[in-house]
Amino acid sequence: MCPNLAPSLHSFPMAKAPKNAISPTRAEDYPEWYQQVIKAADLAENSPVRGCMVIKPWGYQLWENMQRALDDMFKATGHQNAYFPLFIPMSFLEKEAQHVEGFAKECAVVTHHRLEPKPGGGLQPAGELEEPLIVRPTSEMIIGATYAKWVQSYRDLPILINQWANVVRWELRTRMFLRTAEFLWQEGHTVHATEQEAIEETERMIDVYADFAENWMAMPVIIGSKTADERFPGAVDTLAIEAMMQDRKALQAGTSHFLGQNFSKAQEIRYQDTQGDLQYAWTTSWGVSTRLVGALIMTHSDDDGLVLPPRLAPTHVVILPIYRDDQSRSEVLDYVHQLRDELRAQQYAGAPIRVEIDDRDIRGGEKKWHHVKRGVPIRIEVGPKDLEAKSMFVGRRDQPKSFSMPRESAAVKVAEMLGEMQQGLFDRAEKLRSDHSRVITSEAEFRDFFTPKTDSVHEIHGGFATCHFADHDVVQPLLKELKVSIRCVPRDHNDQPGTCFLTGQPAAKQAIFAKAY
Amino acid sequence: MCPNLAPSLHSFPMAKAPKNAISPTRAEDYPEWYQQVIKAADLAENSPVRGCMVIKPWGYQLWENMQRALDDMFKATGHQNAYFPLFIPMSFLEKEAQHVEGFAKECAVVTHHRLEPKPGGGLQPAGELEEPLIVRPTSEMIIGATYAKWVQSYRDLPILINQWANVVRWELRTRMFLRTAEFLWQEGHTVHATEQEAIEETERMIDVYADFAENWMAMPVIIGSKTADERFPGAVDTLAIEAMMQDRKALQAGTSHFLGQNFSKAQEIRYQDTQGDLQYAWTTSWGVSTRLVGALIMTHSDDDGLVLPPRLAPTHVVILPIYRDDQSRSEVLDYVHQLRDELRAQQYAGAPIRVEIDDRDIRGGEKKWHHVKRGVPIRIEVGPKDLEAKSMFVGRRDQPKSFSMPRESAAVKVAEMLGEMQQGLFDRAEKLRSDHSRVITSEAEFRDFFTPKTDSVHEIHGGFATCHFADHDVVQPLLKELKVSIRCVPRDHNDQPGTCFLTGQPAAKQAIFAKAY
Repeated sequence: MCPNLAPSLHSFPMAKAPKNAISPTRAEDYPEWYQQVIKAADLAENSPVRGCMVIKPWGYQLWENMQRALDDMFKATGHQNAYFPLFIPMSFLEKEAQHVEGFAKECAVVTHHRLEPKPGGGLQPAGELEEPLIVRPTSEMIIGATYAKWVQSYRDLPILINQWANVVRWELRTRMFLRTAEFLWQEGHTVHATEQEAIEETERMIDVYADFAENWMAMPVIIGSKTADERFPGAVDTLAIEAMMQDRKALQAGTSHFLGQNFSKAQEIRYQDTQGDLQYAWTTSWGVSTRLVGALIMTHSDDDGLVLPPRLAPTHVVILPIYRDDQSRSEVLDYVHQLRDELRAQQYAGAPIRVEIDDRDIRGGEKKWHHVKRGVPIRIEVGPKDLEAKSMFVGRRDQPKSFSMPRESAAVKVAEMLGEMQQGLFDRAEKLRSDHSRVITSEAEFRDFFTPKTDSVHEIHGGFATCHFADHDVVQPLLKELKVSIRCVPRDHNDQPGTCFLTGQPAAKQAIFAKAY
Repeated sequence: MCPNLAPSLHSFPMAKAPKNAISPTRAEDYPEWYQQVIKAADLAENSPVRGCMVIKPWGYQLWENMQRALDDMFKATGHQNAYFPLFIPMSFLEKEAQHVEGFAKECAVVTHHRLEPKPGGGLQPAGELEEPLIVRPTSEMIIGATYAKWVQSYRDLPILINQWANVVRWELRTRMFLRTAEFLWQEGHTVHATEQEAIEETERMIDVYADFAENWMAMPVIIGSKTADERFPGAVDTLAIEAMMQDRKALQAGTSHFLGQNFSKAQEIRYQDTQGDLQYAWTTSWGVSTRLVGALIMTHSDDDGLVLPPRLAPTHVVILPIYRDDQSRSEVLDYVHQLRDELRAQQYAGAPIRVEIDDRDIRGGEKKWHHVKRGVPIRIEVGPKDLEAKSMFVGRRDQPKSFSMPRESAAVKVAEMLGEMQQGLFDRAEKLRSDHSRVITSEAEFRDFFTPKTDSVHEIHGGFATCHFADHDVVQPLLKELKVSIRCVPRDHNDQPGTCFLTGQPAAKQAIFAKAY
């Protein structure tokens, strides 16, 4: 018997599934749901090395698609890629006081350059280095040392370089994609002749990140400045994009730092200006990482697993052939191969539609759920009856019920549906954020907003509170008590002065307050 | 005065240059010439970290083009990308005896996870790790540990995964691109149910590398097996591609290893076969690195700098506008923008022609040599006279003399010239190899072939000697004396038995002998 026969895919429509594919659900235990989505979608797993993950092919393809889109955006804004060393001599890190303060507590230190047999068996480190090397937690210090050599004259500026690389920060509490000891990222490092140009670059790149988050990831973000205690160590100003996850916590998804002359002074990055005078340059740095994969998962996925915005999905459409015997197999396969080729000839978002046929010899229901959990935007099931009716059975990852559709409309409709889904995911995420954002003007309301109403540690509550506040230090104890932080001072906010939600004092600025990852 | 005016580009044809752009020339001092080509082409430079290089934008674009082409070839042969940890616990390395022997002597060892202030100032490592971590020199041990979990049944096989990553080997004598402490590479790691399948994979991937070397890099290669002492530590068989550089030395440009069951036994990678019996799997690994950039430089470049095979060149055509005043500037720029757009609409080797305009405000001669040294395949100079004559002045990087050409033939001719250059570079490299390859049957001839004829340490001599040899250990002292090594036992060789060039004994196999990088 052909294992694809019973039960047929059609007999297992998603809406009738006995239960959700992911257990626990978001409502039951959001952090555990997140881990289970990653597992069910085969995105990544913990490795035998403490705090490091293995990014599996489906997760890595997602990251590759992100990389490709971002890389094109960086190049379109005049940047070039380069590559700098993995290691930073310890003495380099000491040059910028705040910087070393920020990174010294969690870095991997290389002290030896070989292994030798240990008396009694096994190996031990040998060949001690004269100066320990740090595995880069970020590359300001090693790249800056090189820039100091490259920059002589105003003619050498600006330098607009990006690097795709791995970095290591010895995090104690890790969570896949969100916080791991090693992670993959890109880091832009630029040098400018004037403060104004460097500030413009900082703004330009946070705008690129916001564009990517909203138009590729379908994830609405707020652009704003970090307060002093949340700034990048050594930065004058840190701009960030902040997104609301489905548990209403904030996630910082990308940062762009205006470094002023702090690093150019620490590293002697100086240039001769048009008058022949020596000036310190102005620098920036900016980065996003594999954390974006975590943000994407937590923004869109549901209790049946991963949901992918079509523009980043490794596969847009999976076609599942169903047949009873060798003859229907051959007919169905002909039909689906034609369908695949026709779809591949179509464009979605400026590139060919990515279509796969899953002809594995496993049960239809299992096969279908495999793709549901992995977030493939559109499933098309084709059986012998569809051949007769010249139809196909379509499942959209963003809708509970599958439906039949004429085969002849596939070419037009599939691209259209992908576009609808991309927009629909963004709209849904924006509605969630808007439903759980509010302006708060009193301590009582603030406390109420951020306090669970039940005994469950898993209660989803809170959201984004926009509050005037007068003094960072004064609000800090309350924030600590409620486990809330200041996410950012939004750039696009109405800058009306008001009164501090806590003290009632006049306050010039509003900020977004939230619990956060 | 417009700095583009005098001297005009046309007055500095390459053939009349007072001397070569690179000093020393290849004949004068080949190793130093290599360093100077890298410097003049702005490909890379030494970093402040011992043995590590900075890959500059032009060099990195070249690597990106290589990556893109190889990645497509890997995917076309059924592989997917993934990412595994940078660190390997020391105990993992101990599991395969030959493997640890091969890598323990040159690895970066992480022993601490933070820095703390040192009494008296500065920092010192703190937070000693329970088990030291090795920065991966290659990832068989960390990837194998994960595969052991993934592989349960024959249904899980084959696993066909590739990783793009950085690796570290603590080399004492480094040379940019060819041998650096940190380098970028890809490493494929596959698992198979049968020996036959694993051997086929090993062969398939060395064929992919040979295809890439010959058809993208325009670098002819010989495919063969390494002798036991040159094998990858732990491999049963290592296949390599070997190329001849212009100093007639061999360079190993890529390797593909059949690992047998050595690693699956060391790491317990076992699967249940169709009968339900537990079997050790068969594994392979294969890799190429940024060393390919070094190979490309040494294969094609000349005494004026880098020469790039068009398929990998970051820029195919650079257009250099020449003008005298604002009016001619505007006319010339119109002309070159149209030319650029027209060329960009053309295809070469299945992709749009990559065209840039260099309108920097520097002297024409300087600008032209800038692009010559960087290896841009085609330069097109356009001045006011070309507008009148509807012509353009074309310089090919592979020909000494520039020539005028009708503007209207640009679209067709440029793609044609790029194709000619790609083939011409391959043919020239193949001729060099053929001119300096010979079959050698006696010790006297062997000594003569590999001994310089002058006192100069920089004399270019030797080449590839194909010799029958009976016993590896017996020829070893002679090889050591002459600084020659066995490069490989060529796969495609006529396998006629013969007599050993050294001992006269019967010998079943021929090998390629050469001095090597």
